Amino acid sequence: MVLLFISGFHRPQGWQRLLAEELPDLDFRVWADETGDPADIDFALVWDPPMGELARYPNLKAIFSLAAGSDHLLKDPALPEVPLIRMVDPALISGMNEFVIHHVLHFHRRFDVFEERQRRREWKELPAADTACRRVGVMGLGAIGSAVAGKLGGLGFAVAGWSRSAKEIGDVESFDGEDALIPFLNRTEILICLLPLTPATEGIINKETLAALPEGAYVINCARGGHLVEDDLLAALDSGRLAGAALDVFRAEPLPREHPFWRHPKVVVTPHIASLTVPRTAIPHIVENIRRIENGQPPTNQVSRERGY
Amino acid sequence: MVLLFISGFHRPQGWQRLLAEELPDLDFRVWADETGDPADIDFALVWDPPMGELARYPNLKAIFSLAAGSDHLLKDPALPEVPLIRMVDPALISGMNEFVIHHVLHFHRRFDVFEERQRRREWKELPAADTACRRVGVMGLGAIGSAVAGKLGGLGFAVAGWSRSAKEIGDVESFDGEDALIPFLNRTEILICLLPLTPATEGIINKETLAALPEGAYVINCARGGHLVEDDLLAALDSGRLAGAALDVFRAEPLPREHPFWRHPKVVVTPHIASLTVPRTAIPHIVENIRRIENGQPPTNQVSRERGY
Repeated sequence: MVLLFISGFHRPQGWQRLLAEELPDLDFRVWADETGDPADIDFALVWDPPMGELARYPNLKAIFSLAAGSDHLLKDPALPEVPLIRMVDPALISGMNEFVIHHVLHFHRRFDVFEERQRRREWKELPAADTACRRVGVMGLGAIGSAVAGKLGGLGFAVAGWSRSAKEIGDVESFDGEDALIPFLNRTEILICLLPLTPATEGIINKETLAALPEGAYVINCARGGHLVEDDLLAALDSGRLAGAALDVFRAEPLPREHPFWRHPKVVVTPHIASLTVPRTAIPHIVENIRRIENGQPPTNQVSRERGY
Repeated sequence: MVLLFISGFHRPQGWQRLLAEELPDLDFRVWADETGDPADIDFALVWDPPMGELARYPNLKAIFSLAAGSDHLLKDPALPEVPLIRMVDPALISGMNEFVIHHVLHFHRRFDVFEERQRRREWKELPAADTACRRVGVMGLGAIGSAVAGKLGGLGFAVAGWSRSAKEIGDVESFDGEDALIPFLNRTEILICLLPLTPATEGIINKETLAALPEGAYVINCARGGHLVEDDLLAALDSGRLAGAALDVFRAEPLPREHPFWRHPKVVVTPHIASLTVPRTAIPHIVENIRRIENGQPPTNQVSRERGY
């Protein structure tokens, strides 16, 4: 068995070492130096491969995504017709929980305002924030969005979720389908985007949807830069309608030095670090699916090319 | 029954309205304008009263603290010998949970570093933070400290607690007594102070104890300013041994404009807002204790004058 590792971002060493412990017969090759004969390759473990690259391997049995989203694969029109398997990693979920909880508390408790007051050396309280009345909304209720919505509910927030089909998650109020989007936004004071990036969700945070949020709302985007129309967010922040944003993902990454987000007083910029795949916790699911395929069973957690996630 | 409300900080209106709903016979008077005859006063609900003031009421049956700590009462050498009752308020606990979780995540995920990088418009990741290996330590395991330690454990941190006597809280590692303080600090990368302020804990965060923390540790003080020797913290931050601090309480409040904490790049200053008593959630416990006293029963949650909390 041969696995080809393709990523300009992830370091191969940890994956190689831990996969070797579980699958001693696996021949782990790092693209492009170690690729060898393209006909050798059985599996690919990839992040954002060059367009057309995966079509070069005639005996490929499955493609494993290194990231939570699959948009980096599905944008390739020449993607071969083999199973695409999404990343399932508990560390990816707990990392995202931490990122979102931090930023929701940051805005809920107005630590953004207190930071500004510290710069002015101003000692001034704000009225107590009432968590049970703070309406937080999660767009996208896949494995990560569902976990985040549940955790925020556990902290006492009034949480709603919006997704393609209705979901039942604890006390989370469920909004589903296109018609429910505006009502969902109307009640959401802190909006969190955890959607997959598909043609249906591209640019979903735009002038119209931002206008549906209540005055003084906050936006947290930790899904993909393509979900956000950046100029529309800037306009909504500058007009004073929105109070702030925490952005981890951008249309262009790294975020160009001249981009206005860097210096905007209401924008928190982080360099796509909200949540990272951890080899130790991600490998059991990859190993299980390699074994299933080798035994002639269908792999689990396949991406639907039709839905785009 | 007459209750006297004394506070230069809390607004009386909410307390008055909600107490009247539960105890329609209660005569609620706001010090000093409405005090009337000192002999009328049965109960006092107070924050930081003037020294000697409470000794002026000969028929006082109990003193209720408006804050989590009782140091603002016990510092009065003329404090009358009636039951002192601590504040029991679920909102006080959840507010402190939020404050501590926010700042622990802030330091754990190095959002302080990312803020600095944003100012320099620098796009640069950091290695993934491993929550299970992050050793967080809570000093003080009363109602609030225990709740905070449990919540941090629920987020996956490696939590230990230090208190006068051993406590059992989920997976929280318990250190107790004076001899255990240095070993507790030696393993603590993020230190949270939630101790009561007593002669035994005054100045407990000082040169010697800060030196016991590992290189690069963080300090979060949301108990009382008197726990911290401020110059010792500044020296530890400036020498590079400590990575940062989040301080909500200070020796002098409001923090004087010339104090170096305001402008220190490693210090987050908030104006004593970590957690606030909320009348709606605090009143059931006060009402219950007034009824107990009126029925000749001993009140619950009395402060021990000997222990100081």
